[in-house]
Amino acid sequence: MTIKHIEPGEWNSRAVLHGDYVWLSGIVAGDKMLGVKEQTADVLARIDGFLAKAGSDKTKIVNAIIYIADMNDKDAMNEAWVDWMGDADPPARACVGVELTPNTKVEIMCQAVIG
Amino acid sequence: MTIKHIEPGEWNSRAVLHGDYVWLSGIVAGDKMLGVKEQTADVLARIDGFLAKAGSDKTKIVNAIIYIADMNDKDAMNEAWVDWMGDADPPARACVGVELTPNTKVEIMCQAVIG
Amino acid sequence: MTIKHIEPGEWNSRAVLHGDYVWLSGIVAGDKMLGVKEQTADVLARIDGFLAKAGSDKTKIVNAIIYIADMNDKDAMNEAWVDWMGDADPPARACVGVELTPNTKVEIMCQAVIG
Repeated sequence: MTIKHIEPGEWNSRAVLHGDYVWLSGIVAGDKMLGVKEQTADVLARIDGFLAKAGSDKTKIVNAIIYIADMNDKDAMNEAWVDWMGDADPPARACVGVELTPNTKVEIMCQAVIG
Repeated sequence: MTIKHIEPGEWNSRAVLHGDYVWLSGIVAGDKMLGVKEQTADVLARIDGFLAKAGSDKTKIVNAIIYIADMNDKDAMNEAWVDWMGDADPPARACVGVELTPNTKVEIMCQAVIG
Repeated sequence: MTIKHIEPGEWNSRAVLHGDYVWLSGIVAGDKMLGVKEQTADVLARIDGFLAKAGSDKTKIVNAIIYIADMNDKDAMNEAWVDWMGDADPPARACVGVELTPNTKVEIMCQAVIG
């Protein structure tokens, strides 16, 4: 089975496919001046795009790790997350507070099933 | 192959099954007033329960990430971990200090083989 | 399918193999007095060794999480990372700032395809 890289860059590939799975890099918002809910919505929209390129979608995510810069932002992040999940059964998930690059409020890394 | 969710909630499912694997959410203790060793023992007992529901057990964990709120707690966390692992060969593991929700001293996320 | 453990210790195994995959523990440098670029190079050399024991190599890593103790060290860490990756397409990756054990500047956990 071959390994396929989506948008390979200098440090990482946006996504890597092998067998039944796709692994996404930690995705951050394009506009770091946005609030945490808006950053989260942007991250999730970008994840939708990378999953689509891999032949997957958000209902097929098996696990996600949500890194946030300030745990006080967890509720606002979750509002965007719940809006996004809709009626789908959510993945296994953890949300932890870490140091991110300046002004990045949230970063999400996930693994999904393909096809 | 289908994806199965165990105890899907608003934000996450306790466990997600696909193919040979089960992914568990980050699991925390029920009683946040406990010390770190007691919280860890509770987390591990809860992991036992979710793995059992998935048709797996602790000897089949392939990797685990242990998030702790205070790295000074690592030794006490490890006492509970070693008690729990017993004679089994332990999984690949990392243990890092992060910000968790208030009074949560430890959170453990793992992936295991089913069957 | 069986689960195989490489260098099982008290807390973790250096690597765990199952099916098409190998999961490595969070790997740290042997000499904690080194700077972050040198610690990263040492970590990556050790990862090369564990991947070789598993029948894999760095071109087959699907995802990696890089934990660093100080986000100001990210650029120096990346220099060692880019040197190491060479012309290979890099894996999915996240890099976040966390608390590590004293003097540990970087810890890397990854999953790779075998064979």
